[in-house]
Amino acid sequence: MNKTVAIYDTTLRDGTQAEGISFSSADKIRIAERLDTFGISYIEGGWPGSNPKDMEFFTEAAKRKFKTARIAAFGSTRRAKTKCAEDPQIATLLAANTPVVTMVGKTWSLHVREVIRTTPEENIAMVADSIRYFKELGKEVIYDAEHFFDGYKDDPRYSLATLTAAQEAGVDMVVLCDTNGGTMPSEISRVTGEVRRAVKCAVGIHTHNDSGCGVANALAAVEAGATQVQGTMNGYGERTGNCNLITVMPCLFLKMGYTGIPPEQLRHLRELSTFIDDLANVRPDIRQPFVGATAFAHKGGIHVNAIEKVARSYEHIEPELVGNRRRVLVSDMSGRSNILMKAHELGMDLNKDTPEVRAILKQLKQLEHAGYEYEAADGSFHILVQKLLKKHKPFFQLLHYRVSMIRDAGDTGNVVEATVKLDVAGKVVHQVAEGDGPVNALDKAFRAALMEFFPVIAEVRLVDYKVRILDSGTGTAAKTRVIIESTDGKETWGTVGVHDNIIEASWEALVDSVEYKLFKTQ
Amino acid sequence: MNKTVAIYDTTLRDGTQAEGISFSSADKIRIAERLDTFGISYIEGGWPGSNPKDMEFFTEAAKRKFKTARIAAFGSTRRAKTKCAEDPQIATLLAANTPVVTMVGKTWSLHVREVIRTTPEENIAMVADSIRYFKELGKEVIYDAEHFFDGYKDDPRYSLATLTAAQEAGVDMVVLCDTNGGTMPSEISRVTGEVRRAVKCAVGIHTHNDSGCGVANALAAVEAGATQVQGTMNGYGERTGNCNLITVMPCLFLKMGYTGIPPEQLRHLRELSTFIDDLANVRPDIRQPFVGATAFAHKGGIHVNAIEKVARSYEHIEPELVGNRRRVLVSDMSGRSNILMKAHELGMDLNKDTPEVRAILKQLKQLEHAGYEYEAADGSFHILVQKLLKKHKPFFQLLHYRVSMIRDAGDTGNVVEATVKLDVAGKVVHQVAEGDGPVNALDKAFRAALMEFFPVIAEVRLVDYKVRILDSGTGTAAKTRVIIESTDGKETWGTVGVHDNIIEASWEALVDSVEYKLFKTQ
Repeated sequence: MNKTVAIYDTTLRDGTQAEGISFSSADKIRIAERLDTFGISYIEGGWPGSNPKDMEFFTEAAKRKFKTARIAAFGSTRRAKTKCAEDPQIATLLAANTPVVTMVGKTWSLHVREVIRTTPEENIAMVADSIRYFKELGKEVIYDAEHFFDGYKDDPRYSLATLTAAQEAGVDMVVLCDTNGGTMPSEISRVTGEVRRAVKCAVGIHTHNDSGCGVANALAAVEAGATQVQGTMNGYGERTGNCNLITVMPCLFLKMGYTGIPPEQLRHLRELSTFIDDLANVRPDIRQPFVGATAFAHKGGIHVNAIEKVARSYEHIEPELVGNRRRVLVSDMSGRSNILMKAHELGMDLNKDTPEVRAILKQLKQLEHAGYEYEAADGSFHILVQKLLKKHKPFFQLLHYRVSMIRDAGDTGNVVEATVKLDVAGKVVHQVAEGDGPVNALDKAFRAALMEFFPVIAEVRLVDYKVRILDSGTGTAAKTRVIIESTDGKETWGTVGVHDNIIEASWEALVDSVEYKLFKTQ
Repeated sequence: MNKTVAIYDTTLRDGTQAEGISFSSADKIRIAERLDTFGISYIEGGWPGSNPKDMEFFTEAAKRKFKTARIAAFGSTRRAKTKCAEDPQIATLLAANTPVVTMVGKTWSLHVREVIRTTPEENIAMVADSIRYFKELGKEVIYDAEHFFDGYKDDPRYSLATLTAAQEAGVDMVVLCDTNGGTMPSEISRVTGEVRRAVKCAVGIHTHNDSGCGVANALAAVEAGATQVQGTMNGYGERTGNCNLITVMPCLFLKMGYTGIPPEQLRHLRELSTFIDDLANVRPDIRQPFVGATAFAHKGGIHVNAIEKVARSYEHIEPELVGNRRRVLVSDMSGRSNILMKAHELGMDLNKDTPEVRAILKQLKQLEHAGYEYEAADGSFHILVQKLLKKHKPFFQLLHYRVSMIRDAGDTGNVVEATVKLDVAGKVVHQVAEGDGPVNALDKAFRAALMEFFPVIAEVRLVDYKVRILDSGTGTAAKTRVIIESTDGKETWGTVGVHDNIIEASWEALVDSVEYKLFKTQ
């Protein structure tokens, strides 16, 4: 039995059908090169002729050498009652000048009748002619059988007839597409097996995630004999997305014994996923299997305790195999083990014999009860521990701050102003700033006040600001939790503040953010 | 063959193991009531004894009648070498006073040896004794066999022995847990089938999503004979989350022919999902299968064209079956009917021939683009439509408001003060108030100013105040959306405001809240 599975990436084509995803042609080239390095077998660059950006990509790609990947251009079969050589869409596909051509064609009689509105016989001729045309030009031809599973359920004889027509035209592979993403894994498995027995050529699988089974459906097809999986990075794609290759690859190659991507490349899986999200300007899904920030994060005290004893007790694989790492979350469910592991992770000198551990745990539970949350606020956690270990010395004393805002009748002359007065090592500094809102003004005045003494804080930039009303049932008097994420370009840290007054909650988080930076650079 | 599958929800216990998810005990009661209405069979409320919040929930839950759901308390088997009656954890489980007790126990010999460090025989006695203890007290007992699949692969004889011990102790159901989420669907299928043949009692399934197969694994187990699925709403849970019940339910009940939740309830699936995200203050996953905003969104011109001809050509189910709707991303054709539906819902006089409908749609799109959201803000929607129909007359004119706050060194003498100056039908009124925070002070001053003219607003009480940062990446200058929920004891309405300045965003929502009440009572 052949245990090799080829990965066919269509991030650059099907992936861009997703809401909010688009790539420049320069992005596309960078992605293709990255995928090639990773060991992807096929890279579908776009649908030439559908838009000029896609053609630009193929022009650029043709100038480059790829190590493992073959570049594919995607297009549909010739139009009804048109010769291939006279079909403009076929012509652009040819102009893309790729070693591989992926033809999509209709296999569902419903679509033939009601969408493209031609006869069943003409549709089969369209499939066969288009494939033969590119085979005679020496291309590798992959046939994407659109809506195959829906078509097969409706009228198996006709759907199979389109595949055998493709086979007789010399196609290299037929790919069964679950275009609507609605087929259940057991059906995918059964139908793929039946197709494998009915055709002689290689069979691939193309799935979508509309039923939350995009990955499982691809795996089911592979177990039933498919030797190519089509999908996208991070599962981008129309509606709920395509089969997520970032998930399917470790399943196939780390768990199920298939070969396709070498293990040393899988160690770059998380990097690859982040790289694609960055280029697409998409915030990474922290819960993404294998590569998400929470994929190996442990919260419950019992789990953390067990992890210390035997890692695989609550981890399905070693995080390093996919370039990820273990994280320990600190919360009101934490036990002593969480605190120690977290402290260790932050490079702090704390072990189970440190007498303060119990006090830290107690304080932490009280603060969490009051609404503080340290999971995403490692900066505040760090400072809290330093304070309890009596290792913290404040960098300044607040004398007062003041925030004010006036809004006139027209919403045109609004002024938001904040002042901050600090005592820094005996010197009094007093600054004022305006801002878009009260917290923004306060943030600016605070930085202005410190800048003279600690120029290093110019490196600190706030990258995220989150607000949560804790007991929202009490209306505008509700307790507010603010979480701020800061970066200095090298490291990113979170800080937290909680108060009835959103400005004071923000102030607490701002102070921790700055103190963490100053503590680090001492 | 039994085609009924019971849904067991553990959002309130396993769901809260997720990073960033926590619920107050009031939230937990609201969720339990909502799940009961939806038709969920079992609601696991927490682990009493692990934290006081969980016990609070059980105390409250015991006072209520649930229509379809049975409430379960979760806990682990007795400790090694301890009698059940003397085990403090068993005692808290009993104190939770629930009809159902779910016991988790070890089935993997690795865990027995290296994590809880006892003998294989003692572990089996722990399982059997704990189950028997609760059965003798008349409880329904569910046994969660932790790490069952890992254990079974390692040492099938021992894992099965723990199940048969549970069965002999009178357990109502054994639930096979893929605790680490690493098992592939085909293995889940094979092992569940083998267990079904080896035990006589009912079998359930509990999966995690670490390999992106949480849903598919549950479906595979059901096809192999499992009759209960454990999971969480929106897939919350430790690491990458639990089996997502929001996905698994339509797969089972709309696609695979099982019964469990009535079709008329599935039509509220999207609402249910959003309700849970709102209470958890989690941004909804727009790509979530079935219920996400993009689940039935079409971008490609070809797809849109085909959808117009035959809807099922690119949709696996009708969106309405799960309370979702089709969206066309380029040109929203379903917009007009939505406006009409919403207006109809609010009892407003608007039909497809009203000339203003097109203008309302245009304005709404602009506002939604700017960050306004009207799904939870029916009060603001009402006022917006009245304004566009030129039926709105303002009850007052804002002349100005001012908010100020001073915070001194000690966080003791903070003063937050707001003034509001209005022109009400030619009379000028000017009021001042203090508050816990700037919005609270503004709210009080505003009400004080109006009270003299509209005493009816004394009936209005704010019941909820939510803040979301829209483009949180820009730090403290981010755009803010505020949603306020108000009630007058008879009706509850939501209003929305969006601004760079949180105080102004809150002001907008406060004004809409009051105007909606005044409009109603004219």
